Amino acid sequence: MKLGLVIGKLVSSRKEGNLDGKRILVVRYLNDEMKDTKKTVACVDTVNAGEGEVVLLCSSSSARLTDTTKNVAVDNSIIGIVDSISIGKEYLYKK
Amino acid sequence: MKLGLVIGKLVSSRKEGNLDGKRILVVRYLNDEMKDTKKTVACVDTVNAGEGEVVLLCSSSSARLTDTTKNVAVDNSIIGIVDSISIGKEYLYKK
Amino acid sequence: MKLGLVIGKLVSSRKEGNLDGKRILVVRYLNDEMKDTKKTVACVDTVNAGEGEVVLLCSSSSARLTDTTKNVAVDNSIIGIVDSISIGKEYLYKK
Amino acid sequence: MKLGLVIGKLVSSRKEGNLDGKRILVVRYLNDEMKDTKKTVACVDTVNAGEGEVVLLCSSSSARLTDTTKNVAVDNSIIGIVDSISIGKEYLYKK
Amino acid sequence: MKLGLVIGKLVSSRKEGNLDGKRILVVRYLNDEMKDTKKTVACVDTVNAGEGEVVLLCSSSSARLTDTTKNVAVDNSIIGIVDSISIGKEYLYKK
Repeated sequence: MKLGLVIGKLVSSRKEGNLDGKRILVVRYLNDEMKDTKKTVACVDTVNAGEGEVVLLCSSSSARLTDTTKNVAVDNSIIGIVDSISIGKEYLYKK
Repeated sequence: MKLGLVIGKLVSSRKEGNLDGKRILVVRYLNDEMKDTKKTVACVDTVNAGEGEVVLLCSSSSARLTDTTKNVAVDNSIIGIVDSISIGKEYLYKK
Repeated sequence: MKLGLVIGKLVSSRKEGNLDGKRILVVRYLNDEMKDTKKTVACVDTVNAGEGEVVLLCSSSSARLTDTTKNVAVDNSIIGIVDSISIGKEYLYKK
Repeated sequence: MKLGLVIGKLVSSRKEGNLDGKRILVVRYLNDEMKDTKKTVACVDTVNAGEGEVVLLCSSSSARLTDTTKNVAVDNSIIGIVDSISIGKEYLYKK
Repeated sequence: MKLGLVIGKLVSSRKEGNLDGKRILVVRYLNDEMKDTKKTVACVDTVNAGEGEVVLLCSSSSARLTDTTKNVAVDNSIIGIVDSISIGKEYLYKK
């Protein structure tokens, strides 16, 4: 899974693929130092994430394996809020 | 999902994979500032998108999860017309 | 789907995955100006494409959704011959 | 499959997709000389890998084909601990 | 499918996903001139390929569509030994 930073939201009134009522957030991928890469992806939110939160992203067919996204035309889902990332005894990131 | 700009259409009279009668549009991926990246992808349209519209794209097996694309040999579908993208209280894009 | 130019063919006498009897063509991806990117991919042909033709390519699990490629170990298929690509009233490409 | 180096772990208390109780490790892809590429990916661990170990990674739908990851929203799993990689009679890597 | 050159083999005694007994080879992707790109991928061998051979690679879910890889956690399989690649009447590669 990749790591992302929620930066905004996307509104689409005309959509298909069982996307009605899904919350679509705009996310930027983070690099190895947890910095914004400026690469943007739109994701269906399954954990009620908010702007500024670091999230765990799941792509392709696996993005559909949540209660929110089953049988939905989604190729990227937010599946977790990251609390911390530790390397040995140090934190690379802590909420 | 990725964001794209519809720039044209593609005609193919000899095709397979249940693609007959599908509308295939030519789309350019947009970058984080909603600028044209010049990277082109052909997508089956499921929302009757028009040239110049900003659209939401779904790839791989999830691209088949619409009424239009079920069991079709398609790896990229246009699944929504983007109305707006907001970051906090500001609009990055508004139709 | 991506756009490609058929440049040659590949012969493999020892192969698995129900590939026996399939025609495997060598294709180069085309860029936004329909120029050869030099990036090569081997594809199963489902539309009897010939060298020099511009084709529509479908990847991953969707590449198997044709009569020719069902249950075949193929991650890239040629699913259409491109007749034209138009942007507004102009042709970017015409066969 | 790709090769990676386990560098840390990720904690997420709020997550979906049957991820509860799964061990999520932070992995860096290795290049052809087995050097750290700095490109990071979060993976579900299925083999009890530890920090500093070189591991085998499996992505997309195949990442779900282990006892640990069946029906889980995971697009990258650690599926093996690498003992050695040999080129002819020489070792490129040996644990 | 992509083209690769078999350069070595990988041993992993602790692995999951029905990989036991599978032969895992280390492969380098080839570029358009059949030169080594130095980009490495580990693949399950289904055709008894040897070091130095040019092979055909199949990825993602399609990598599982051989007798050897059915239900195995594999995202890249060697599915053919390449005999030749011809462009018009000339050989780009001949075994």
